[in-house]
Amino acid sequence: MPKYTLAELAEKFNGTVKGDPNHSVSGLASLQTATENDLSFLANAQYKKYLLDTKAGAVLLKAEQADMFVGNAIILDDPYLTYAKISYLFDTKPISQAGIHPTAVIADSVKIDPTASIGAHAVIEADVVIGARTVISAHCFIGARCVIGEDGWLAPRATLYHDVKIGKRVVIQSGAVIGGEGFGFAIEKGNWFRIAQIGGVTLGDDVEIGANTTVDRGALADTIIGNDVKLDNQIMIGHNVQIGDHTAMAACVGISGSTKIGKRCIIGGSVGMAGHLEICDNVILTGMTMVTRSISEPGTYSSGTSMQTSAEWRKSVARFRHLDEMARKIQQLEKRLAEVEQNDKSSS
Amino acid sequence: MPKYTLAELAEKFNGTVKGDPNHSVSGLASLQTATENDLSFLANAQYKKYLLDTKAGAVLLKAEQADMFVGNAIILDDPYLTYAKISYLFDTKPISQAGIHPTAVIADSVKIDPTASIGAHAVIEADVVIGARTVISAHCFIGARCVIGEDGWLAPRATLYHDVKIGKRVVIQSGAVIGGEGFGFAIEKGNWFRIAQIGGVTLGDDVEIGANTTVDRGALADTIIGNDVKLDNQIMIGHNVQIGDHTAMAACVGISGSTKIGKRCIIGGSVGMAGHLEICDNVILTGMTMVTRSISEPGTYSSGTSMQTSAEWRKSVARFRHLDEMARKIQQLEKRLAEVEQNDKSSS
Amino acid sequence: MPKYTLAELAEKFNGTVKGDPNHSVSGLASLQTATENDLSFLANAQYKKYLLDTKAGAVLLKAEQADMFVGNAIILDDPYLTYAKISYLFDTKPISQAGIHPTAVIADSVKIDPTASIGAHAVIEADVVIGARTVISAHCFIGARCVIGEDGWLAPRATLYHDVKIGKRVVIQSGAVIGGEGFGFAIEKGNWFRIAQIGGVTLGDDVEIGANTTVDRGALADTIIGNDVKLDNQIMIGHNVQIGDHTAMAACVGISGSTKIGKRCIIGGSVGMAGHLEICDNVILTGMTMVTRSISEPGTYSSGTSMQTSAEWRKSVARFRHLDEMARKIQQLEKRLAEVEQNDKSSS
Repeated sequence: MPKYTLAELAEKFNGTVKGDPNHSVSGLASLQTATENDLSFLANAQYKKYLLDTKAGAVLLKAEQADMFVGNAIILDDPYLTYAKISYLFDTKPISQAGIHPTAVIADSVKIDPTASIGAHAVIEADVVIGARTVISAHCFIGARCVIGEDGWLAPRATLYHDVKIGKRVVIQSGAVIGGEGFGFAIEKGNWFRIAQIGGVTLGDDVEIGANTTVDRGALADTIIGNDVKLDNQIMIGHNVQIGDHTAMAACVGISGSTKIGKRCIIGGSVGMAGHLEICDNVILTGMTMVTRSISEPGTYSSGTSMQTSAEWRKSVARFRHLDEMARKIQQLEKRLAEVEQNDKSSS
Repeated sequence: MPKYTLAELAEKFNGTVKGDPNHSVSGLASLQTATENDLSFLANAQYKKYLLDTKAGAVLLKAEQADMFVGNAIILDDPYLTYAKISYLFDTKPISQAGIHPTAVIADSVKIDPTASIGAHAVIEADVVIGARTVISAHCFIGARCVIGEDGWLAPRATLYHDVKIGKRVVIQSGAVIGGEGFGFAIEKGNWFRIAQIGGVTLGDDVEIGANTTVDRGALADTIIGNDVKLDNQIMIGHNVQIGDHTAMAACVGISGSTKIGKRCIIGGSVGMAGHLEICDNVILTGMTMVTRSISEPGTYSSGTSMQTSAEWRKSVARFRHLDEMARKIQQLEKRLAEVEQNDKSSS
Repeated sequence: MPKYTLAELAEKFNGTVKGDPNHSVSGLASLQTATENDLSFLANAQYKKYLLDTKAGAVLLKAEQADMFVGNAIILDDPYLTYAKISYLFDTKPISQAGIHPTAVIADSVKIDPTASIGAHAVIEADVVIGARTVISAHCFIGARCVIGEDGWLAPRATLYHDVKIGKRVVIQSGAVIGGEGFGFAIEKGNWFRIAQIGGVTLGDDVEIGANTTVDRGALADTIIGNDVKLDNQIMIGHNVQIGDHTAMAACVGISGSTKIGKRCIIGGSVGMAGHLEICDNVILTGMTMVTRSISEPGTYSSGTSMQTSAEWRKSVARFRHLDEMARKIQQLEKRLAEVEQNDKSSS
């Protein structure tokens, strides 16, 4: 395990030590579980309460939080970002060696940078180009004519169909499928007739695709994922969807074909969107929202109902079915009451 | 890129050219993005507005639409179906060669038609039968005794457990798992006890299974997917589900065990169905509908609430929890008001 | 096909034969589809009606059900559990042979029990330990330092990132990804900055992970799945989630990061949970429930609305948007009516 003194870390990440600069840490942990060998951090205000009792060897704090903690600390402008950077010092993720594993099956016309790494049993088809330092892990499949930029990391068993273009520093987790054939059918005499999906997929720089997420290829033009877009696991992106730069989606989201999502949107888990919509920049959707119309105003949107005991919920649900009737009854009551009031007034 | 004159296309697909029969096109594109080298089409009435400004070299149109467009056109009975057929002329999907890749691992007892194609690192277990012209792409796993009909296409990394029977012209996208062991447990002294899933899976002719979709094997008899059923990505089909011919499901749908779905149903994205239900033919379910009871009447069904700004939504949600109380208050109001009205009448 | 007389089965599973002890069965089937060569069972009260007409050669029944059926039966304390045990007698799942397939790629430092089975094209990285009788099927990827207990079964194409610890008798279905990098990002000058996910995953004994389910590794400490936890297909477990012993989840559930779920919970299909929640023991959540707050009382919880025809539903949904207004109108009506009533009383 690597070990760092607080002085070393403060220097490396532009902080100042409060307490013992020679105290050394060999791991990262939450305030609740940290030991004196661990570095911790306070990022979420609701965890302030844990600061009192933490056994952490040191805590990353903002200047205004320094008085709240008597132990060792490193004072920083942005403790959470610094934690993010320090996390790599303690990461045990194996590093792939440059070169091509002898069991990989690689077409003749493929161009692989000598600093790239191709894992065991990977399959790379004709005319693929793979950039410098990019890692194609074991069991990956890279279809014909794909272009993958430098410094990418494809986890074991990522799958790219043909004609997928990928920018720099792109991460694709295991089981993700990029470029699958979208759901496009005409009807011929009562049977579905599949439409060839002749577009590809373009992923910008710094994109991340989660485990078992699927991004379908375009029906005509490409499906487009902008720069710095982050997709969590088990997401489904339909054909010809466009996603603007910096947008992030939590897991299990489904986006139907040809919907266009703006920049810097935050899409909560299990959100579903109909096809052919336009969502403007800076939209936040809370988890499980059903989106069936376009959104033209930035802001936060939701749908659904909140959890109740099932006994209470059943009553709400039964009434929901008759909500229109209820509303009409209220209108009638208002009208009838107004008449009574009028009569009372006349008669008094 | 292949190139076709409008005269050639009209002849091939039973249309008539309006405009220049010698104009040639080398691609397909939407009305908005097409250039003079592209063929386009009008399928969706909401895109009529793009017809005026399109730069498409030619557009596929119905006879009654011909007057709306001054440029070149091919007049057809069904422009969308013709577009679907023409799409294959411009498809760049690589064609797999017949034969078995030397890295494939194939049991002795397997019967593979000589016109079939088996990709790199595929694994095929005992007593499998693979039909004429069927493509088993790289990294596919085909379990013991599977039978796959002719003209099928399994994308890279499709997985079939043992005893899966597949019809003709079936397409299975990457990451799909057919025949996994369903969720069946008894309880023994407070612990779950797994039930062996001894049924298989039967897929009819012309079935399509989307990327990362899972179809569990039957607990006793087979799970059955009818002819021409189309399943999009990330769908979950539980054990012993039965799906009728021509039914189509959008992505992220989950169908619990032993539910039976009729023919020609259209199931929207992220719909969830409880187990042991019966859904009749010709049912349409809009996206994200929660189905907890059987449906015996054809028609369109829905559940959920529509999107609002989160601020507005929170108010609706809070009231929803007290909907039963609201309904009771309305009843009381009606009763009290009736009394007041009665009194008024008596007193006047 | 194996064949068993009712006498043999009764002896093996501590039951008593009612009817012909020499009748033999060679399969298992539901009451509706069983033939005289099949054994069937009555587990679900709603299937009692099928007992009258079943053609089953014998039925597993409780003593109190014996009078309801005139055919052969085996009388047992728990027919469903006995069915579960008998299911293995008729299971045709192929048995993997001990040993390592020559196409597997295995690092030097790996310790594999000689009774374990490693399938074709499996890839096993440095310092992995695999226990007795455990099966690693074809195309599995096992990352560095993973430890897998005895009697496990990994289906073809299960993927474990590095540092995943797995107990005894664990089953992982195809396409599952354990230990993927969770969704953790800080922000640096408007760009997402990935946080290294330095924790691992711990799965207890008797865990089952469904097809294409993803369990992310911990950001700091491990993501923890307790003993006898059963996860169905297409589930997403975020980083640092903790799941208590014996909890079961149906398909398509999504659990956000750091949420802690108690013991013996039953989570219905497509449930979504926000992050950092605590769910106590013995909670049942019905399908598609949206969980955005912690639960501290055992019981059954729900959210959502029930299915209607789309025409009716649209009316309910439109009113739902104005529910707060409706509630206010009721309050006003109550107030106005009380005044009228007061006036009436005074005037009379």
